[in-house]
Amino acid sequence: MKQNRYDDPVFFEQYSQMARSQQGLAGAGEWLALRQMLPENLTGMRVLDLGCGYGWHCRYLMEQGAKRVLGIDLSHRMLERAAEINQLPGITYRQAAMEDLRFPPQSFHLIVSSLALHYTPDYRLMVRRMARWLRPGGQLVLSMEHPVFTAQGPQDWVYGPDGEIRHFPVDHYFSEGAREAVFLGQQVTKYHRTLTTCVNALLEAGLTLRQLVEPQPPTDMLSLPGMADELRRPMMLLLAAEKPL
Amino acid sequence: MKQNRYDDPVFFEQYSQMARSQQGLAGAGEWLALRQMLPENLTGMRVLDLGCGYGWHCRYLMEQGAKRVLGIDLSHRMLERAAEINQLPGITYRQAAMEDLRFPPQSFHLIVSSLALHYTPDYRLMVRRMARWLRPGGQLVLSMEHPVFTAQGPQDWVYGPDGEIRHFPVDHYFSEGAREAVFLGQQVTKYHRTLTTCVNALLEAGLTLRQLVEPQPPTDMLSLPGMADELRRPMMLLLAAEKPL
Repeated sequence: MKQNRYDDPVFFEQYSQMARSQQGLAGAGEWLALRQMLPENLTGMRVLDLGCGYGWHCRYLMEQGAKRVLGIDLSHRMLERAAEINQLPGITYRQAAMEDLRFPPQSFHLIVSSLALHYTPDYRLMVRRMARWLRPGGQLVLSMEHPVFTAQGPQDWVYGPDGEIRHFPVDHYFSEGAREAVFLGQQVTKYHRTLTTCVNALLEAGLTLRQLVEPQPPTDMLSLPGMADELRRPMMLLLAAEKPL
Repeated sequence: MKQNRYDDPVFFEQYSQMARSQQGLAGAGEWLALRQMLPENLTGMRVLDLGCGYGWHCRYLMEQGAKRVLGIDLSHRMLERAAEINQLPGITYRQAAMEDLRFPPQSFHLIVSSLALHYTPDYRLMVRRMARWLRPGGQLVLSMEHPVFTAQGPQDWVYGPDGEIRHFPVDHYFSEGAREAVFLGQQVTKYHRTLTTCVNALLEAGLTLRQLVEPQPPTDMLSLPGMADELRRPMMLLLAAEKPL
C-alpha cells in the first residue's frame, strides 16, 4: 500500500495553504534553479511529470511548447485541483503510484519529477525505469530533499535555550531507508539516501550528469521570515541528466 | 604566502603518527573506495599527484604500470619522507604550491589529488587547470573533505552531557570560504565549498562525471575505536571524472 498522505483532508488543507500551492511556481524557492535546468526548447516534446501535484509544472511545460504532458500523482485530491486550475489541451492527469507505472522504452523526451522521489522506497529502480523511458538525447530533471536534510529524520534545527537556531543536525547518514518526519503537522514517511546513491544511480543507469544544484533562496526572498536560515543548510538537491544519443 | 602547516615540526610529528602515515594506503579508510576509481590499466601513463604527501599513491601508481609519476607537495618535510620510503625509478617529487604549477595542455593521462583540494582557496581555478592538463580521455580522481564536514568550521561532533555524541552540526553551508579547523591539535585553514561547486566545477570545465562516492569505513575497520561513528556523517567526498575524447 503506497503512502497517500496528500489524500488526508487535514494534510491536504494544510498543503493548500503553502506558498507553492497558492502562488504556483513563483512561490517555490527552488523554481528559478529548476527552470534553468530544463531544456531551452520544448517544442514537440512528450513529457512525463512524476508527482505532478497541482500541475504547475505541467502547465509551464505545455506553455513552453511541449506537445503532450502526462502528469502522474498518487493523490486524487491533488489531481482534482490540477484539473481545475492547470488543465490545458495536451495535458493528461492520471492517478497512480510511480512504482506501478509501465511505459514502452523511449516514450518521453523529458521526464520531470519535483519533490516526489524522497517518497519512494526504491529510488534506484525508479531511476533505471526513467532512463529506459527516455529517448536517446532525452533529459531527466529531478528535485528531491537533500541527504543532509533527510539523514537524521525529524528534519528540524537544533535550538538554543532562547529558541534560537544553533545548527542543523546530521546523523545516521550512511543508514539509508525510511525516516519519520513531521511535515505540515503530520507524520510522513520519507526515504533517506546518501548523495552517493542519488548521483551514482543516474550514472549507473547510463545517464550523463549535466548539473547538480543545491538551490539557495533567491535574493529577493531573503527578507521573508526564516528564509535567511535556508542559507545555513541545504534542503533540496536538483539533478539534471541526459540519456546519451 | 601559502599555508604550509606540514612543515611545522610539531604538526609534522603528529601527522607522522596517524595510521595513514605509518601504514600507508592500508591505513587510509577511503583507500578501497579511491582505488576502484582509478583506471584499471595504468600502463604507460604519465601521472600527476597533487598533494602527494608521503608518496604512497605515487608508489602505488608506479607499481601499477605508470610510466612516470610527478608528486607535488608544499611541504619539504613530506617530500623528504617520500624520497626515503616511496622513491622508485619514474617518480619525481617536487616542492610547489599547487596554485603555482604550470604545465602544457594535455600533459597527463591521469591526475590524482588526495585530501589536498580543501586547502586551496580557488578550487574552480584548479579544476579548470587540471582539465586543461589532461589528455583527451584522461582521468581525474579526487578526494576532499565533504561539504557536510567543512560547512560549520570546527569539524567536531555535538556532545551530550556525558560526552556522548549527539549528532554532527551543519551550519553556514552556502557561505563558501575559509574555515578555521583544529587538526592534530593545530589551527588549520581549510576551505568550504558546497557540493554544487565541487561537482559543477568539473562539469563546467568540460569533464564528464564518472563516479561520486562518499566512502564508508570498510567493514573490517568498524570495530576500531570511533570508527562506527563514521557512519553517522560523511567526512570525505571522492570524485572521478573524465576528459572527453
